[in-house]
Amino acid sequence: MSFSEEFARIARHFRPLSEGLPGAFALGDDAAALAVPAGQELVVTTDAMVENIHFLPEDMPQSVAARLLRANLSDLAAMGATPMAYLLVTALSEKVGEEWLAAFASALAEDQKNFSITLAGGDSVRTGGPITLAVTALGLAPAGQVLRRKTKRPVNGKNTPALYVSGTIGDSALGLMLGKGEKFASLQPDEENGLKERHFSPTPRLELGRTLRPFAQAVTDVSDGLVADIGHIAEQSEAEATLHAADIPFSPAARKVLDERPDLFEALITGGEDYELAFAMGIGEEHLLKLAARQINLPLTKIGRLAPGVAGEIHVLDRENHVIPLKQKGWTHF
Amino acid sequence: MSFSEEFARIARHFRPLSEGLPGAFALGDDAAALAVPAGQELVVTTDAMVENIHFLPEDMPQSVAARLLRANLSDLAAMGATPMAYLLVTALSEKVGEEWLAAFASALAEDQKNFSITLAGGDSVRTGGPITLAVTALGLAPAGQVLRRKTKRPVNGKNTPALYVSGTIGDSALGLMLGKGEKFASLQPDEENGLKERHFSPTPRLELGRTLRPFAQAVTDVSDGLVADIGHIAEQSEAEATLHAADIPFSPAARKVLDERPDLFEALITGGEDYELAFAMGIGEEHLLKLAARQINLPLTKIGRLAPGVAGEIHVLDRENHVIPLKQKGWTHF
Repeated sequence: MSFSEEFARIARHFRPLSEGLPGAFALGDDAAALAVPAGQELVVTTDAMVENIHFLPEDMPQSVAARLLRANLSDLAAMGATPMAYLLVTALSEKVGEEWLAAFASALAEDQKNFSITLAGGDSVRTGGPITLAVTALGLAPAGQVLRRKTKRPVNGKNTPALYVSGTIGDSALGLMLGKGEKFASLQPDEENGLKERHFSPTPRLELGRTLRPFAQAVTDVSDGLVADIGHIAEQSEAEATLHAADIPFSPAARKVLDERPDLFEALITGGEDYELAFAMGIGEEHLLKLAARQINLPLTKIGRLAPGVAGEIHVLDRENHVIPLKQKGWTHF
Repeated sequence: MSFSEEFARIARHFRPLSEGLPGAFALGDDAAALAVPAGQELVVTTDAMVENIHFLPEDMPQSVAARLLRANLSDLAAMGATPMAYLLVTALSEKVGEEWLAAFASALAEDQKNFSITLAGGDSVRTGGPITLAVTALGLAPAGQVLRRKTKRPVNGKNTPALYVSGTIGDSALGLMLGKGEKFASLQPDEENGLKERHFSPTPRLELGRTLRPFAQAVTDVSDGLVADIGHIAEQSEAEATLHAADIPFSPAARKVLDERPDLFEALITGGEDYELAFAMGIGEEHLLKLAARQINLPLTKIGRLAPGVAGEIHVLDRENHVIPLKQKGWTHF
């Protein structure tokens, strides 16, 4: 296949994804031009995925597309931003066929509708190696109001914010294990599918992020694993975090697995790609969450606290308040 | 090397590059938050490079960094935008050592000063394959005034804009050949070095892009090769382009090579990565260029014309106005 054939093919699949965004210039220009309304600021993030590292050659291209885009949307959610547009880099080898690309693009088209976001540009290159994909997501938030990992007010004797997490933790890690062929005797097929769905088609918590914006003290998404991401909040807030293992919210399916395989506890709380939001609420501000949780139909669970101490330290305590030793705290990235 | 060691290493090299941009949050957050001043719009582009495709394992990491960032800056230049910030994706295998990364980052630091741009965020992932790098560059331009590949006014019997190109064409292609070990008897060592410099350390024409903004009709950068990029202008403008081979500007060194090896003419005009700007000027507007050329100290050469015809067709004519047949018209990308 010649270069022009290869890239005509790509234009065929990707150009339609830019429809409805005039400043994308139908991907026919050197760059896109996007308006940022007065009073808003641009929120921008990038996340990449590599074959054999973040996904397997046999994974459905639809799932690869969804995970790629939604990982980025989850970062926007953590900042309380509303998605606007994205850019896509694909590095594909000659073995990537028309069918793969069509399925990949169709899942992007689906998610553009789900999340009100449009392709603004990209680059498509060849590689002699694994499929490598990167998305840069652009969102908008009211200027000066983005939520950060660092608490709005310093953590000290008078400000020891409670730590919360949305939804349930560890389902994605279990879904990945199931995807790799692991079996759990306690699970029904529909429970297995539910867990796999959490991994292969995660849900960015965009509405929650916007809802939290006015009153949370700090927010992050849970992408590297609950422990690592709470650790990021603690590090950025120059505080120490304590989590209570018994309070970490697990789905009924995950609870079944933990009854069967209690040794998996650490894997679930460090496993990554939950794409929930973890956040800090000031004491006396927690009542605000009740209304929020009802509005967005998502459980919000108090799991611990920030306090003065060694910046970035995190302790997970058992029911007797003994520290549970962890082998690793999760993935980290810059 | 553990993940946390690997990524601590990366944070060590890249975090300093975000200094001076408060909204980058020292790369410690889920996303960056950037202000777009009233009256400006965001111009955004992304370009990727893959080892063994766009650069060789033995290439200096400084050159890889410069080419990566400057390819993106050249896209901003083509839109008449001023660089603001960029995001960086690195997919590195375990064989990429501390030394490579330090040299790569030091070249980015250098170019941040050269081009007034700051790292706003990124993602660093592992790969089992070739080094894969992507930059998303963000720039600003007065709202509604970006230059495009499509002429401002339709090309018709009354509007047959002249086509210009800045600087000289083909030096980068020759620099790449020299880098691969090709020899030209006619060249002195300093000429060889000058040509290599054009390839391994190209100069984005940012000042020219801004200067052209008010009065050019269409602009693109010359990244895919002169013929392909003029073809993009022709395609977007639904017009036909004619170039006069004798008018295409070559450097003295490139002229020497063409005297020695006239068969290389096609390679030079389709070779890519010149990072000059090619642009269309309305008849009667060309006198405006004289002042511009003097201000920016860069030759601007008329090389052809757009006219009504088959959209995207491009003909390169010899001195007798015969069409020079070309085997390929250059690289294309989406």
